[in-house]
Order: sequence, then structure tokens, then C-alpha cells
Amino acid sequence: MFPRNIRCSRAFSAFAPSRTQAQPKPRIVFSGIQPTGTPHLGNFLGALQNWVKLQRDAQPEDDMIFSIVGWHSLTLPQDPKALSIARRDMLAVLLAIGLDPQKSTIFHQDENRHHVELGWLFNCITPMGKLRRMTTWKGRLAASRNANDESEVDESMLNAGLFTYPVLQAADILLYKATHVPVGEDQKQHLELARDIGDTFNRTFGRIFPLPEYVATPTRRVLSLKDPSSKMSKSSPDVSSRILLTDTDTQIKSKIRSAVTDSIREISYDPVSRPGTSNLLTILAACTDEDVSDVAVRYADKGHGALKSDVASAVSDLLREPREEFERLSKDPGYLEQIAKEGAEKAQARSEGTIRKVRKLVGLV
Amino acid sequence: MFPRNIRCSRAFSAFAPSRTQAQPKPRIVFSGIQPTGTPHLGNFLGALQNWVKLQRDAQPEDDMIFSIVGWHSLTLPQDPKALSIARRDMLAVLLAIGLDPQKSTIFHQDENRHHVELGWLFNCITPMGKLRRMTTWKGRLAASRNANDESEVDESMLNAGLFTYPVLQAADILLYKATHVPVGEDQKQHLELARDIGDTFNRTFGRIFPLPEYVATPTRRVLSLKDPSSKMSKSSPDVSSRILLTDTDTQIKSKIRSAVTDSIREISYDPVSRPGTSNLLTILAACTDEDVSDVAVRYADKGHGALKSDVASAVSDLLREPREEFERLSKDPGYLEQIAKEGAEKAQARSEGTIRKVRKLVGLV
Repeated sequence: MFPRNIRCSRAFSAFAPSRTQAQPKPRIVFSGIQPTGTPHLGNFLGALQNWVKLQRDAQPEDDMIFSIVGWHSLTLPQDPKALSIARRDMLAVLLAIGLDPQKSTIFHQDENRHHVELGWLFNCITPMGKLRRMTTWKGRLAASRNANDESEVDESMLNAGLFTYPVLQAADILLYKATHVPVGEDQKQHLELARDIGDTFNRTFGRIFPLPEYVATPTRRVLSLKDPSSKMSKSSPDVSSRILLTDTDTQIKSKIRSAVTDSIREISYDPVSRPGTSNLLTILAACTDEDVSDVAVRYADKGHGALKSDVASAVSDLLREPREEFERLSKDPGYLEQIAKEGAEKAQARSEGTIRKVRKLVGLV
Repeated sequence: MFPRNIRCSRAFSAFAPSRTQAQPKPRIVFSGIQPTGTPHLGNFLGALQNWVKLQRDAQPEDDMIFSIVGWHSLTLPQDPKALSIARRDMLAVLLAIGLDPQKSTIFHQDENRHHVELGWLFNCITPMGKLRRMTTWKGRLAASRNANDESEVDESMLNAGLFTYPVLQAADILLYKATHVPVGEDQKQHLELARDIGDTFNRTFGRIFPLPEYVATPTRRVLSLKDPSSKMSKSSPDVSSRILLTDTDTQIKSKIRSAVTDSIREISYDPVSRPGTSNLLTILAACTDEDVSDVAVRYADKGHGALKSDVASAVSDLLREPREEFERLSKDPGYLEQIAKEGAEKAQARSEGTIRKVRKLVGLV
């Protein structure tokens, strides 16, 4: 478990020196999030808060591009009405947490068709074998095997979108000539594939794509409040296992109060034998931007009651502004539509030159 | 071997009655051709001449849509410069043989991105197993196995575009709500897949796509002039094995004169034991729009010299106008560009409503 902020500054310190010592080289940062339901505290303390930090720390010449990747969400079955709501809500969330359309390009991937065109072109240079080696695909395959009794079950029932979406992801990234891609550890292999595809394209048709670098997303692993052996998850049937970005102070207090801990009186940070208590310490440390061990020392003699009460207050404080802003934005669909429209136009304008050049290089002119 | 025109009128006679007996139901006909090199006589007597007939026989309320499918051609390696030339030449050929932008929508598939968007959405509802059963894919797989010594060679080296292009083809067709698709026998399975995908979409998200009907493309199987055991092919190293749409009268005469036949003096139609001679009879019958057996009877006593001379004249007569028109158009790239632009706009306008409705149905709004 790494304190998020320390890791964050460490992850980016590598770029800082070159900015002062030599001509600063603008970074193009791209990242995406699927529009599937209201984000929870785990999402917020992971990717989302990190995006806000990236925007805050960006130099004026940097390009920050954040995308709601609707086309990716369709690789799994979605209820159309729920997807439509989640899609708009996710835009509201991104604005509510502090992403600024004036500073960053914030847009719906599915409103820039350059993505699907480049995705198709990349399909034509991506060997089947490389996609078959993706651990995400292997995971789907294993899950489908377990869900089925017949031993000969294979990939036949999985859809082709699920198989090729890492190629579309490569297109998402390379379309903007991204140089830095903050993603979770689980997406590192996909970024490797994107570099690989970019390199193949450059060698086959002519150099056009920079190969994007992996930027570790400093994540606090936030666990389920009801079953601290697993991550906080939006798919768990028990809604009190997670805190949503839209939860009220009362809901937050109630969920934290009923969080599973243990019967040891003292407070200590020990994720293996005391996962529930440690999870609360992790959340508190994340909210107050402290090292989790410092927090643990402070609460050593205070007991679970005091800890829970302070965690609830801290989470409430952290989420209040985003939640209020989200509620305000949700009542203004016209504004959200306008922001989406401007974002799409900005993204299209940003990728127009690249797709034009790519088409020329492959001979589609 | 079926006389082309008889089959053609038979294939369409099925629709004729309903037009006179009941309210005529407009047909939407879609077909595509890859821009890979100058078409030869075999292509012309197959798909291309059939398109012209379809346009000629169309009712005013029918929609005729002919597409040069550049994105598909990239599933196999292409030289970008050659592809770019072939792409423009193919448009010139379509106009030269008589397709009329006033009567039909003639456009570059790769200039309407709705195709790749719908292709992606279809990927997400197409099980891997269905694509794996495509005989075109199995053929590629077999060819790749033969080309490689290692017995364990598998699909790993084949690209994902080659695997998923039948899905893009389904998008090509359904994007325009095509009701009739004239394709060769070898593409019949792909059309079945398109119907299957359309049906799955209709059942999952709501009825929007009519299921397109197969229209047999009446093809004269034109064979290589040098090796009549195989089809006339643009990839054969011996250029005298094929007649190109752009060949001059002199080139045609020379190629026909040197065509492989046999040493039997009489002329008879017997494709199995006399493939070379029968091929010339097929070509002549196609040019003069006759039944091949009638032609065979007429030449029974005349010998190969007379037959070849008449075949050369007939082919020259058939190709003269298209060739001259092609040459004229090739000197006018501005006009071709204008036609391509208008065609793309027409196609986009034609598919805009469908893609908008599809996006709404899946929840991308």
C-alpha cells in the first residue's frame, strides 16, 4: 500500500528535471473511463482524483485529454437506458470533481469516429496471437469456462468486441499522439500493446506515432466495507459495502458505522490480519492526505468508535463539494450537453490531422 | 455454366410480379468491390456488368448503392501508393462502364465513418464462434498452414482485421438498410452472417434492420488464357493470362491469339476435357449475349483461328467504350474527386438517420 500522493509526485518527478534543465517537451496525457454507473469512493481515490492532480500539475503547453469511453462499455451487455444515464452522469462527475473543460479536453469517445476508424486500421496490423495473450481476454475466457458446466466450452460465445477492444484502446491513445498514459496496473499490458501497434505502424507506413509511456496511477486499494477481503465494487449486491460519490452525509455515516472491523480494542495498521480496520485507516489517510502509518499511530488508543466517526467526517468533507456540484450539474442537462458538444468538437479537431496523415500513409487518399 | 443474362432476368423475375400486383416496395440494393488493381475481363463479366444491369433495371423508387470498399482491402498488405491509385482508378472504372452518379450512390466506403462505427457495435454482439466458422477465414487459415512448415502453425500470425471483416461487411450492408445484396456464391455465407447480426440486433435493441436477401450474381467463370485450369486472376505473374479493362485492341488481339487451347480441329463446348477452347466460347457468348451452346454450334467447323479472331474482335468491341471513357476520366482527377466527394456526402446523408437511431437504441445518447 503506497500513500497516493507520495507516489504521485514520485511518478512525475522524472519529468520535472527535463522541464527546467532543457527546453520543456509538452506532454500529451490521455486516459479514459467507462460510463458504467456512479463512481464509488474506490474509483474516486484511484483514477479520478489522480486526473484532477494531473490537470493541476500540468504545464500550460501540456495537453490533458480525458475520455468517457462509451464504445468500450458495449463489449459487455448494457441496459441502453442505464447506459445513457451513466454516460451523462459520468460527464457530470468529471466536472464535479474538478476537471475543467478550459484546461483539459473532456469528451465522449463515442462522439469522435476517428477512434473507430483508427481502430479498424490497427486491427489490420494486429496479429490474432497478440490479442489472445491479453490477460484480460484470458480472464474472460476463464470466467466463461467456470460459468459453464461443459468442459469443452471455449471462446465461441464471447463477442468479437471483447476480443479486439485492446486495439480500440490503442487507437484511443495513439489518435492523440499521447506521450503519457496514466492507467492502473491491470491495464499495463494493454498499453504495451498500444506501443507495439504504434511501433508496427511506424515501421510499416512511416513514423507518426510517439510511443506512449506508462504512468502508474497511484491507487489506494479501497476495500468493501462489508467484506474487506475484496475490493470496493459497484457490482456487489450489498449497497452498504460501498460509498458512492453521490451519497449524503447521513448515508456515509451509516455505511461507515456499520463497516466490518474486528474486536481488538487497539487500532493498528495490519492489512493481512486486520483488513477491515486497516481499510478504514487507508480511507482516512487518503482523505487527509497523510501517510497511513501516521494515522494509525494517532488512533492507536482511540478505539473503533472514534476512528469510524472521524472516517465518516473526513469522507463527508471530501465528497461534499463534488456531490453538491454533481447535483447542481445534474439539474442542468443543457449545460452538460453543451460541454459534451464542445468536448467532442475539440477532440475531433485535435485528432483530425492525425487521421488525415494516417489515411495518407496507408493509401486511403 | 449459366448464360449470364438468362440467369440475371430469372434472379430478378421474383420481384417483378409484386411490383405490378401490389404497392411496389422499393428495393435497396447494396454491393461493394475492393480497390485492388485494374479490373480484368473476368471481373467485368461478373460483378461489374451485373451492377450496370441492376442500375438499368431499377425502378425510380429503388436505391442503388455501390461502394468501393477501401477499408476491406487493408486486411491484406497493400502498397500505399498502389492502393491510392487503384482506389481512384476503381471509381473511374465504375463510371466508365456506365454506373451513373445521378441514378446510383457511388462512393468510397472509407469516406463514410458510419461504417466503422456500426462495425464496432456489431463486433460487440457477434460471438467469436460465428466468425471462426466463416469459410473465408478457414481458407486463410489453411493457406497460412500450407505456407509454413511447422505443423503447429495456427491463426496467431493472421491479423484481427482479416478475422472481423465479415462484421464490417455486415455493417456496410445494414447501414443502408439494404434489402437486396448481389454477391458471388463465395460471399453467400457472409451475407448469412449479416442477416444473423441484423436479427440479433433487432431482437436485442429493437427492430431497425430489414434482413437483406441474397441476389445471385450471374457469373461467367472466365478462366486464365494461359492456364485454363484456374480462374482469370489479377495476381497471376503472367500478364498475358488476363485481359484488363484498360487493354488496347492490339493487346487484346495478341493475348487472345496466344491463348492456350488444344489441337483438336473442331470447335466444341466441353469445359472438362477442353477447358481452353470452352473458355474462348464462354467469353464470346458473354460478349455477344448469347447462349454458349449456340455459339459452339456456329463455330463447330471453323477452327481455332477464326474463333480467336472473332473473340478478339468481340472483346475489343465490348471494352472499347469503357476503356476510352476510363482514359478520358483518368485525365480529369478533379472531376473524379468531385464525384467521390458527392458520393461520400450522399452515402453519409443516406446512413445518418440509421446510425443515429442505432446509437439511441444501444444507449449512446
